[in-house]
Amino acid sequence: MIPTPYLLFLGDAPDQLSAKVAQGIKDWRPENAVGQIRMQGCNADIGLEDLTLEQAYEKGARTMVIGVANRGGYISKAWKAVLIEALGTGFDLASGLHNLLRDEPDLVSCAEKYGRSLHDVRVPTVEYPIANGKKRSGKRCLAVGTDCSAGKMYTAMAMDRLMQERGMKSTFRATGQTGILITGDGVPLDAVIADFMAGSIEYLTPDNDQDHWDLIEGQGSLFHVSYSGVTMALIHGGQPDALILCHEPTRQHMRGLPEYSLPSLKDLNDTSLHLAKVANPNCKVIGISVNTLNMKEEEATAYLTLLEKELNLPATDPFRFGADKLVDALGSIT
Amino acid sequence: MIPTPYLLFLGDAPDQLSAKVAQGIKDWRPENAVGQIRMQGCNADIGLEDLTLEQAYEKGARTMVIGVANRGGYISKAWKAVLIEALGTGFDLASGLHNLLRDEPDLVSCAEKYGRSLHDVRVPTVEYPIANGKKRSGKRCLAVGTDCSAGKMYTAMAMDRLMQERGMKSTFRATGQTGILITGDGVPLDAVIADFMAGSIEYLTPDNDQDHWDLIEGQGSLFHVSYSGVTMALIHGGQPDALILCHEPTRQHMRGLPEYSLPSLKDLNDTSLHLAKVANPNCKVIGISVNTLNMKEEEATAYLTLLEKELNLPATDPFRFGADKLVDALGSIT
Repeated sequence: MIPTPYLLFLGDAPDQLSAKVAQGIKDWRPENAVGQIRMQGCNADIGLEDLTLEQAYEKGARTMVIGVANRGGYISKAWKAVLIEALGTGFDLASGLHNLLRDEPDLVSCAEKYGRSLHDVRVPTVEYPIANGKKRSGKRCLAVGTDCSAGKMYTAMAMDRLMQERGMKSTFRATGQTGILITGDGVPLDAVIADFMAGSIEYLTPDNDQDHWDLIEGQGSLFHVSYSGVTMALIHGGQPDALILCHEPTRQHMRGLPEYSLPSLKDLNDTSLHLAKVANPNCKVIGISVNTLNMKEEEATAYLTLLEKELNLPATDPFRFGADKLVDALGSIT
Repeated sequence: MIPTPYLLFLGDAPDQLSAKVAQGIKDWRPENAVGQIRMQGCNADIGLEDLTLEQAYEKGARTMVIGVANRGGYISKAWKAVLIEALGTGFDLASGLHNLLRDEPDLVSCAEKYGRSLHDVRVPTVEYPIANGKKRSGKRCLAVGTDCSAGKMYTAMAMDRLMQERGMKSTFRATGQTGILITGDGVPLDAVIADFMAGSIEYLTPDNDQDHWDLIEGQGSLFHVSYSGVTMALIHGGQPDALILCHEPTRQHMRGLPEYSLPSLKDLNDTSLHLAKVANPNCKVIGISVNTLNMKEEEATAYLTLLEKELNLPATDPFRFGADKLVDALGSIT
């Protein structure tokens, strides 16, 4: 178990999106987020109080979570001094990065010296099976996106929260480091060995009550050439009954790939559904989730109305306007 | 380097297909294949002389290659006595299985005792990058299949051999254990960590002469729910200029998935091409490669003629009838 509450380390985050781990914890477990700590040159701000290590410790924080992900997911040398000072102040460290806290000799020796622990959540701890594709009981919903970081986790989180409020049976199933840091459990899918990806998602979403919904955290995009294989494994391993299309309409190009433009929502709909039907012929696309963070409210509303007409599907920003339309649409799956 | 020639170990292979590693070495490097060794209950026969360990050693074999892959790719306990005896007889062991020879304490201690080496080829030895999707010079051809084990590696091998004979510039790029054992180099893609799959294929097929062709070994199938993520990463990491559709027409269901039927070649064509165009808008499907092993010659010829009409693409069995049609079709890519 990772000691809570957390101090969220933003480091030298180049932009707001790269701090999405910290932002996710703040949005979905605010009670665990005591404050943020930033280095010079940090371009992210998740709207928490900027604290020194001492202030955060005094306010009760016991783990400093690395809330920033750089491309490739490694532990930056520039962070080292702060990480070591945090251990000295009395914090555990938690990270979802690809390279591990436990593989950094200086961090390991400092942690030992100060009696602190290093928590690497992006380490598969289970020997996942090869996927067998057998039909499982219960229902599953998966968000797929026109791009990475398009709101897939938030969509699942918002639906899960609302379904709990409505007394429905649901479970958020984390597949990435943020989700795992928020919920304390899940599959670190992008760190799983290729042959076992789909099997790890079958393992994560086992047989369940017929009226139970797994809300599976999506990853990447079928149209993002760096990570499309991970998305494909989610679609087949998750054998979703319901797909939700996620989109961020102000994005100029695929994240991290300036030469690549985004696919249309229609293309996302058709391609995802066609491949999802391989594993579950009854799969349906039930709605659209738009991240309208960068739009004014009336602009966002008009855009959602337009999409609903164009694609004949309910559309909302579940974080801004509530997830009701999407949860209602689950009712069409029998 | 793995000492050659090889004795090919078929163990207790449940069927012929599960011995495809051994079969591939025999077909593409016959000079390295001294004989086969089988256990009781073995249902595979690759048509080499059955030898005892002593006979094989006398005939010059210096490495016993595990030429059988069971589901999940693990080292079976039932094989242990033979593996240990082989080390005692003077053989190195080579394996492309997921779990490693070097992780089996009894094999490690025997290898030490007898001064022999354990070669695990399914271990990534490179820190692959995240794919960046940038256009690379030179040309690339990828075989995609309606199912696993449908002839993708053989297609690439046969094309490469013919292109060499014709004096064309080509390189077979191995992505699986058989290919790596045959050529001595490649990416063990199904053992790569999810986030780095596409990047490993970019690494494997770098910038090259404009008239050079990489013939990339295909893996899995977009329609095989256990392994589709691996195939997806090959399509985007490989950014192929040319796709070849592979099919085994007597297959009753997807390999290992009795509940799943095969997609049509038309569906394979449309789905693969649509996704390939994300990474390379100029990608074309240039031909069909059919594994006609289980068909009589006139039946095979009639089937190929039918396919050519139906899909308006050249169709052949490159192993049985030569790869000329497919290599000729590469000429349509400019």
